[in-house]
Amino acid sequence: MSKEIPYKIYLEEKEIPTKWYNVRADMKNKPAPLLNPATKEPMKAEELEGVFCKELVKQEIDDTTPYFDIPEEIVNFYKMYRPSPLVRAYCLEKELGTPAHIYYKFEGNNTSGSHKLNSAIAQAYYAKEQGLKGVTTETGAGQWGTALSMACSYFNLDCQVYMVKVSYEQKPFRREVMRTYGASVTPSPSMLTNVGRKINEEFPGTTGSLGCAISEAVEAATTQEGYRYVLGSVLSQVLLHQTIIGLETKAALDKYDVTPDIIIGCAGGGSNLGGLISPFAGEMCRGEKNYRIIAVEPASCPSLTRGSYRYDFCDTGKVCPLAKMYTLGSGYIPAPNHAGGLRYHGMSSIVSQLYDDGIVEATTVKQTEVFDAAQKFARIEGILPAPESAHAIKVAMDEAMKCKETGEAKNIVFGLTGTGYFDMYAYKQFNDGEMSDYIPSDEEIAASLANCPNI
Amino acid sequence: MSKEIPYKIYLEEKEIPTKWYNVRADMKNKPAPLLNPATKEPMKAEELEGVFCKELVKQEIDDTTPYFDIPEEIVNFYKMYRPSPLVRAYCLEKELGTPAHIYYKFEGNNTSGSHKLNSAIAQAYYAKEQGLKGVTTETGAGQWGTALSMACSYFNLDCQVYMVKVSYEQKPFRREVMRTYGASVTPSPSMLTNVGRKINEEFPGTTGSLGCAISEAVEAATTQEGYRYVLGSVLSQVLLHQTIIGLETKAALDKYDVTPDIIIGCAGGGSNLGGLISPFAGEMCRGEKNYRIIAVEPASCPSLTRGSYRYDFCDTGKVCPLAKMYTLGSGYIPAPNHAGGLRYHGMSSIVSQLYDDGIVEATTVKQTEVFDAAQKFARIEGILPAPESAHAIKVAMDEAMKCKETGEAKNIVFGLTGTGYFDMYAYKQFNDGEMSDYIPSDEEIAASLANCPNI
Repeated sequence: MSKEIPYKIYLEEKEIPTKWYNVRADMKNKPAPLLNPATKEPMKAEELEGVFCKELVKQEIDDTTPYFDIPEEIVNFYKMYRPSPLVRAYCLEKELGTPAHIYYKFEGNNTSGSHKLNSAIAQAYYAKEQGLKGVTTETGAGQWGTALSMACSYFNLDCQVYMVKVSYEQKPFRREVMRTYGASVTPSPSMLTNVGRKINEEFPGTTGSLGCAISEAVEAATTQEGYRYVLGSVLSQVLLHQTIIGLETKAALDKYDVTPDIIIGCAGGGSNLGGLISPFAGEMCRGEKNYRIIAVEPASCPSLTRGSYRYDFCDTGKVCPLAKMYTLGSGYIPAPNHAGGLRYHGMSSIVSQLYDDGIVEATTVKQTEVFDAAQKFARIEGILPAPESAHAIKVAMDEAMKCKETGEAKNIVFGLTGTGYFDMYAYKQFNDGEMSDYIPSDEEIAASLANCPNI
Repeated sequence: MSKEIPYKIYLEEKEIPTKWYNVRADMKNKPAPLLNPATKEPMKAEELEGVFCKELVKQEIDDTTPYFDIPEEIVNFYKMYRPSPLVRAYCLEKELGTPAHIYYKFEGNNTSGSHKLNSAIAQAYYAKEQGLKGVTTETGAGQWGTALSMACSYFNLDCQVYMVKVSYEQKPFRREVMRTYGASVTPSPSMLTNVGRKINEEFPGTTGSLGCAISEAVEAATTQEGYRYVLGSVLSQVLLHQTIIGLETKAALDKYDVTPDIIIGCAGGGSNLGGLISPFAGEMCRGEKNYRIIAVEPASCPSLTRGSYRYDFCDTGKVCPLAKMYTLGSGYIPAPNHAGGLRYHGMSSIVSQLYDDGIVEATTVKQTEVFDAAQKFARIEGILPAPESAHAIKVAMDEAMKCKETGEAKNIVFGLTGTGYFDMYAYKQFNDGEMSDYIPSDEEIAASLANCPNI
């Protein structure tokens, strides 16, 4: 007899995982290594250590060790907001009239408002351990910058955030949260870096892009004594830290003998998706289990579904190592009507390889559909989701409706990465009927891809 | 031997209280009844039922029944975000170097962002049960309007919110959250009601007040078929619903054999404070226990500490019943530099009587001190508090520092009513060093009190 499942499954504090899981150890085809943009040779640890913290470089390049111990200080910080709840969406199921059982792992219950904090605290910890003064980073929608400023404040590290100019201006309150946590926030492109000055000169009045802010943050890290650069997604180290999401999800489901049929996550750089699915994808890689894993992308930034799997630049200034990934070309910038995050031109190497291997499938949704699902979800389940998270909601609702047709009681699990409190401008556009969709043409994507390096 | 206390004490879902506690049943001196403003006689149930839902009127006037069953539908809604965590502030204790043990009951873990949802869902439920079409209300800082719009969306009720004009304009995103939940939001004073038109005529360009928005909402409720008025604080029915906070707090403390020495809550209309302290104040009323209970008010709106205990109008338009309470006079409006909530001129009759009886003590704090405490707390405990909640934080930190001097390991419990995501404009003022304090003069308060009715 199955146990009665509560609205929210909370693990106990002592059940917080004490190791991150490195899915690469179980992957038959390993993700391709980062390449030195000058030599096109795989980046050596020593080379990476000029940009990243030493311990994080180890995590970045290790594709054989299956588990990494989580330092006690990080586990203690996790205790402030973890374990996060795995919610059974009883209200949504009832409203949809579906026989499906819907679960979501809610990562918005912390001040940063998203899952980004899981990696921010780890990266800040290793920076502190290394005796650094501070870190630099970029932020787009602002979730990562907020999470990092919280983490740095906890470890008393200086935090310099380059925020995409358009977001800096449209989201003054996001910026204010970071300042409250003691971070300095600079609109990018700025006049503080060579690359910023160059871009401002070439494109006067530009409102910036994530790729450009990355270039500035990397330059700032490598030209200041005692600083390193940290990144909130894409990198394998980030996915490693985010596996705390998937490990807790699996533990909570196991507690109630629930096996998921479908696992759904939104995919921008891949950190949330990769973290959520890692333990499940690992089982598939080892041939033990079979799940449907769905990555959901915005139709306006479809790197997995319409990009090319190849080496590309990670940033606009081309100062970063090259990564093999599904990409739309490093110059690709989603149309101005694109709201929220999920706007990076590439995708985590791990997720890219899992997709290429058929472990992960991918789909796209249009933003008006996404906000429609977000509004429905808010009214039914009470949580106002971030636009990013609502991509997963939309597909979870679609899959639940398919179950209604077929009468199948599938277990659907999705990642609810965060809350939308700082996205109300986009909600306003939707509420006012002024939101539109954008789907790039094949020509647009081909033109952008033409600028990838020849490797 | 005492059990090890986790960072967050979570009760189980089945431990959610199934009854609200009515502290009036244990009070030796009962709060004075509401009076009919025309006859000055106690309001009869029939009279109140024109304004409020029938079942809520029962709860409003019953001062002898100690417990009210919580309907199952409400308990099920509570399960979406309750039990809320009782957090042991280990990080704050360490930072302060205090031997005190600090606990806070965190009510911000729901989309409305505050404790207001506890009563909103109850009031919406009774409105639905009564077969009403919808409800009207006012909101100042926006927490109550947000909570009510969520609750109404859940029960498919129309929700009409009159929002103080200055907040409507300064907090467009708060308004947008309400709209996302399907509520209509009107800036007050509006041209939709007689009282609004009259106030607009008398004071052209006025930016409104809570007392004025209340008058408009009451008029809107009583002039539309199938509508009633609902209120987010002050009323005894609201305090009753909010006792879920105190009951859970007590259950969580009991589980770990912790007896609080000091219980602290911010006090505006008194709903959070009253709800948090009710079970503890009840023990004091029954002579079973002794606690220090501290109500914290803003220095700019000090109804308990500097007001007068007497009958007064509850609204500017003087359409509501008269209440006996600590009041600054119904025309009192905090200075324009006052940020956030806690701006009502009066105080819950229950809290007023408990204060008058010496069960509750009260103190004031200045807003720059409050934001300083808020910023510290955010950096140390990771939660960005609402300005209202930070009043309690400030006094909890002060009490913890006293313990450091005396070496006492007191148990300090405070209510963390909500998050500050929609208060970043005020945080910005603080971050920019542009926040100021205001303390009304004795003459100002005396002049305002001179307009109280002669009863």
